[in-house]
Amino acid sequence: MTTPVIDGRRARGDRTRHAVLAVGTQRATTEGLNGVSIAQLAAAAGASKSGVAALFGSKEQLQLAIVADAKRVFTEVVVDPARIHPRGLRRLRALVRAWVDYSAGRTFAGGCFFLAASTEFASQPGAVHDAISEAMHLWRSYLDISVAQAMDDGDLPRLEDAAQLSFELEALLSQANRTSLMHGGDEPYRRAERAIVERLQALGAKDASLEIELGPRPRV
Amino acid sequence: MTTPVIDGRRARGDRTRHAVLAVGTQRATTEGLNGVSIAQLAAAAGASKSGVAALFGSKEQLQLAIVADAKRVFTEVVVDPARIHPRGLRRLRALVRAWVDYSAGRTFAGGCFFLAASTEFASQPGAVHDAISEAMHLWRSYLDISVAQAMDDGDLPRLEDAAQLSFELEALLSQANRTSLMHGGDEPYRRAERAIVERLQALGAKDASLEIELGPRPRV
Repeated sequence: MTTPVIDGRRARGDRTRHAVLAVGTQRATTEGLNGVSIAQLAAAAGASKSGVAALFGSKEQLQLAIVADAKRVFTEVVVDPARIHPRGLRRLRALVRAWVDYSAGRTFAGGCFFLAASTEFASQPGAVHDAISEAMHLWRSYLDISVAQAMDDGDLPRLEDAAQLSFELEALLSQANRTSLMHGGDEPYRRAERAIVERLQALGAKDASLEIELGPRPRV
Repeated sequence: MTTPVIDGRRARGDRTRHAVLAVGTQRATTEGLNGVSIAQLAAAAGASKSGVAALFGSKEQLQLAIVADAKRVFTEVVVDPARIHPRGLRRLRALVRAWVDYSAGRTFAGGCFFLAASTEFASQPGAVHDAISEAMHLWRSYLDISVAQAMDDGDLPRLEDAAQLSFELEALLSQANRTSLMHGGDEPYRRAERAIVERLQALGAKDASLEIELGPRPRV
């Protein structure tokens, strides 16, 4: 059994952890994951540096915790809301819709967390690089599975290679994210949507609309 | 008139400047433009810190000089070799060919200099951000002009909006650059080429091949 004193400490630790990660995921997208420090996050979260250091340990541990938290947010904001649709073309369209909203709505201040982090760590091998890579691989597999199911359903009759379409979707979404961050505005998202709708139509999709219902999304 | 002593100093300064920028553009793509320092580049170029500081002044001046040098390299490696073809579809295909070779051939160790730098500076307003943005705008205008000329020539009969195709081309090229850096290998470039060829064909291009001759490229 834990004593009330220890429970209180644990609850306080959980609150600090939550506050630090909330600041950390945001800052990582604007100042870089390498720009995040225990001292800076402790100050921003109103906690002591030693307390935050005790919760996260090394800077690498802190970065790994931030990546894990960003992955949780991404799942809640992009993946889960698309799950109200069955696997296949409808879920694929919903994933695209939710991703555009996630990026355009600046869930993270610096746009997509993983696009920013993967560029930053592209040439920095190690545990953080691998965690980012794994999270992006998981997202890619969500796309691949939906594309493959759409093909099985006969909803993309002119598509031969599922991975090719996933590559193209990621390309267009990433470009919208980057261009909007660089120059501002929503036009890049409209261009990406237009290219995706036309591509799905060219592949034989009868309904390629991205105006598709989504399940509830948490306020992050 | 300058004396031989001053000429000697100037020549030495030019050599140091060249060596520092060569190291700086490479490092900026792997460690970030913010990770580049006068002390580090002086050491790598075998020059004194005070000498390099005298040549470049502030860190921001150094970063601006690195961006300008990367732009020069990009022009020599991507833009100039495509100029053997007239404006229009042929030059557009040559620009795509040259860009793929520039990125896949790792002209810069960390892939495209401007994609790395623009992500890094997306949320950092200032002179460096603006210089990166301007260089990318220039590249975009090369694409736009070639697309517009191809439309005027009747070579892309099903295209309505030149900027839409430029957006899609940049999306596919950037995705190839990023994915190859993250996971290695040339497959992403083959996917981008395939998507671009199919897109040009869908827009009515009679010859969409990216196997197109290029003018001489300097060894950088």
